[in-house]
Amino acid sequence: MTAIDIVKHALKGIQTEDNPQIVKQKSRDFFWYSPVLKRQLDHVSGDLLVTPKTEAEIRQVLQVCFENNVPVTTRGAGTGNYGQAMPLSGGVVLNLSELNRIKEIQTGVVVAEAGAIMSAIDVAAKRSGQELRLHPSTYRTATIGGFVAGGSGGVGSINWGGLRDLGNVNRLRVLTMEAEPRQLDLVGEDLQKVMHAYGTNGIITEVEMPLTASYDWVDVLVGFDGFMDAVHFSDALGNLDGLLAKEIGPIAAPLPHDYFLRHQKFIRRDQSVVVCMIAPFAMDAFATFAARYKSAEVLYRSDLASEGERTARPPAYELSWNHTTLRGLRVDPTITYLQVLYPFPTQVESVRKMTELFGDEVPGHLEFVRFDGKITCFGLPIVRFTTEERLNEIIQIHEDNGCPIFNPHRYTLEEGGMKQTDAVQLAFKKSADPKGLLNPGKMIAWENPHYDYCNSKNFLFPGLQAL
Amino acid sequence: MTAIDIVKHALKGIQTEDNPQIVKQKSRDFFWYSPVLKRQLDHVSGDLLVTPKTEAEIRQVLQVCFENNVPVTTRGAGTGNYGQAMPLSGGVVLNLSELNRIKEIQTGVVVAEAGAIMSAIDVAAKRSGQELRLHPSTYRTATIGGFVAGGSGGVGSINWGGLRDLGNVNRLRVLTMEAEPRQLDLVGEDLQKVMHAYGTNGIITEVEMPLTASYDWVDVLVGFDGFMDAVHFSDALGNLDGLLAKEIGPIAAPLPHDYFLRHQKFIRRDQSVVVCMIAPFAMDAFATFAARYKSAEVLYRSDLASEGERTARPPAYELSWNHTTLRGLRVDPTITYLQVLYPFPTQVESVRKMTELFGDEVPGHLEFVRFDGKITCFGLPIVRFTTEERLNEIIQIHEDNGCPIFNPHRYTLEEGGMKQTDAVQLAFKKSADPKGLLNPGKMIAWENPHYDYCNSKNFLFPGLQAL
Repeated sequence: MTAIDIVKHALKGIQTEDNPQIVKQKSRDFFWYSPVLKRQLDHVSGDLLVTPKTEAEIRQVLQVCFENNVPVTTRGAGTGNYGQAMPLSGGVVLNLSELNRIKEIQTGVVVAEAGAIMSAIDVAAKRSGQELRLHPSTYRTATIGGFVAGGSGGVGSINWGGLRDLGNVNRLRVLTMEAEPRQLDLVGEDLQKVMHAYGTNGIITEVEMPLTASYDWVDVLVGFDGFMDAVHFSDALGNLDGLLAKEIGPIAAPLPHDYFLRHQKFIRRDQSVVVCMIAPFAMDAFATFAARYKSAEVLYRSDLASEGERTARPPAYELSWNHTTLRGLRVDPTITYLQVLYPFPTQVESVRKMTELFGDEVPGHLEFVRFDGKITCFGLPIVRFTTEERLNEIIQIHEDNGCPIFNPHRYTLEEGGMKQTDAVQLAFKKSADPKGLLNPGKMIAWENPHYDYCNSKNFLFPGLQAL
Repeated sequence: MTAIDIVKHALKGIQTEDNPQIVKQKSRDFFWYSPVLKRQLDHVSGDLLVTPKTEAEIRQVLQVCFENNVPVTTRGAGTGNYGQAMPLSGGVVLNLSELNRIKEIQTGVVVAEAGAIMSAIDVAAKRSGQELRLHPSTYRTATIGGFVAGGSGGVGSINWGGLRDLGNVNRLRVLTMEAEPRQLDLVGEDLQKVMHAYGTNGIITEVEMPLTASYDWVDVLVGFDGFMDAVHFSDALGNLDGLLAKEIGPIAAPLPHDYFLRHQKFIRRDQSVVVCMIAPFAMDAFATFAARYKSAEVLYRSDLASEGERTARPPAYELSWNHTTLRGLRVDPTITYLQVLYPFPTQVESVRKMTELFGDEVPGHLEFVRFDGKITCFGLPIVRFTTEERLNEIIQIHEDNGCPIFNPHRYTLEEGGMKQTDAVQLAFKKSADPKGLLNPGKMIAWENPHYDYCNSKNFLFPGLQAL
């Protein structure tokens, strides 16, 4: 019997699946956004899909896999874009989508199991007038545990910053990968040990997150003749302290017209668009603000659309963040994208420079966020892909111009550029996963003991050593 | 019969009072914070106190006063500090404290009559988990109309900026001072016409304001050996995007020990203190953050105090903003204060400079706020008053160092420095108060047709002409 056979046998009573096609399908995420990752990871598959329903079942899976030296790669809904949940060394794919109970909702706080869908949490929280602070554009499919383990921010980051920021995650319950898995409740500085670590150093089973006030956000599309007009508008809107927006994302022509097929009739092909979500009671203020911009044309407001019109179209958040890219890929599978930070206070100027430099080879897509207390923007520009060499050149030019890239064409934590590893992180991994069985191949510092993690790069999720 | 007698007679059925002592008492606010205003305004009194209960009654008062050329000065609870509500030309003092119905509370919105007490609005809003975004330290006595007409921001400004910011007031209902008073519902840009105008160009009768999520805020006092340590801590805390605070106010030693008598036992005399209000679910994150500062000592947390201990002490917001000054004046009536803006991004450096320059003559008291999208601080430093000349010198030195003063020792809108007048503002006053009967003497541009309002000074509430 192979190790996998032993594991499968030992786990009877827990839902498993070894049909290769199904396992392969559940071994994938949205890595194919990147032509580089597509080439590298297309063949990747686990050997056995395991779908536990309780923490006790997970504990059993970990024990058995530990004993038999079988790798375990955890996944939520598989909505990541960097192969976060892809089992490079095969083994067990641990699917947490059925560990999905919403356990507790209090004023300002939700406790949920890792596999709970984010929009389902919000449906439950809405009963008390609350919702999650942040969510990815994959809100309707993504799990809360997957977001914490593989995401960084998204819709709502204009108000709350990112997952990395103290206060955006209250507590994470983690099981370690040992003969006798330990249950750890991580809070405070310790949260960074497992956040955005792709499940390399513990299995997140439960999440405690803050909630904020829930509103029936109004989707608004504002059109501009020039992309830089849209950028100036967005930057100013983000800096309006009293006007509550949940999303501000300018996208350069011709992307909005070409990619947003259900909104296409509102958008001229030469129009750049700012995708917004605005609190309903702020719509008067928003209209007042927009009227200050001669160049701004409000193209669509969900609060003025009929219910039929509204439900025929995707919500604004599914035009934003990585959904912009996804809609682009549906129309034109040859494109790809990048992830850029335009640092405050030169964000607008940096965007202008990159826009002028690359033109329609790299059409702009920005997401305004609060970052270290200031309003600035991330970019998820579309790249009209030609070769990997040119892609790397484009990346290099951004970095040379002071615009750091979080490279979505790399599947390791360190090369992705969001997660810094260091001695503290590594020591935690050593204690939580001594055999290195959790999502192998994703943490360079673990795979290569000579890796120098003391480089000068900036990471979204910093190391723990300096603290 | 005098004009006042005619008015009094014509208003029977409406509550009036002409006992000179009572009228004088109701003609005052907290102008005596300023030794300059105390000298100038101590004698001021209206002639007749009128306390309407409905908008119809106000309309009647305005008609009668208009006909008889009697000035009308409106007041809420009289908690302003600049003589905003003091009737320089006598006449009617229009007391709106009984026009206080809370008319409607919806998700994100409250509609209330101008005389509603702000804490009473929050009691009502709390039933739906909501509260006002901003309030002055006089929360438990101040009226919502008085706040809009005479205030600028306060507790909550760290999240929402100030009243001047688009979106912090939705709608103001105003009665004009004419033979037939018109009822205007002002929204959008028009709001600026009557905001922070001391009731000089219309009587605010109803206010529509946004609400935000309500929490049982935790009062925290954090002690530091040096004031600048407290300032650095506060600036960093304000810039933490995920950690929800409602108040961050550093106060230099020995003020906290000397002025906060009910908290004195927690505070060493040489300790500077940061007064904070933190969301209860953020206290773990707050403790984590505070532990990063070796110099920070958490002196008091209301969530760890017994109920008896907690209720024996004033809430944190009554240690902050103008209540710091008030508590100081109770201990030492010879002090006064200033209002300073330390502009971003040099706020910390500017504070350091002023602190070094003035030492204990001007002990620091800052309030961190969001201002045009950035975290910076206002100052309400205590001034150990000697002479008006020295006070003016201190003001001049601040301005020479790039720290604008909003002068709380002036009772006119323009000299106070918060409200800019211009041709649009003046034209509105001409139409809303053609005889100039509303709160006469407060708007220089009206009193003096040769007043040059096109100066280069920065105002919190800008003019309307540029829009």
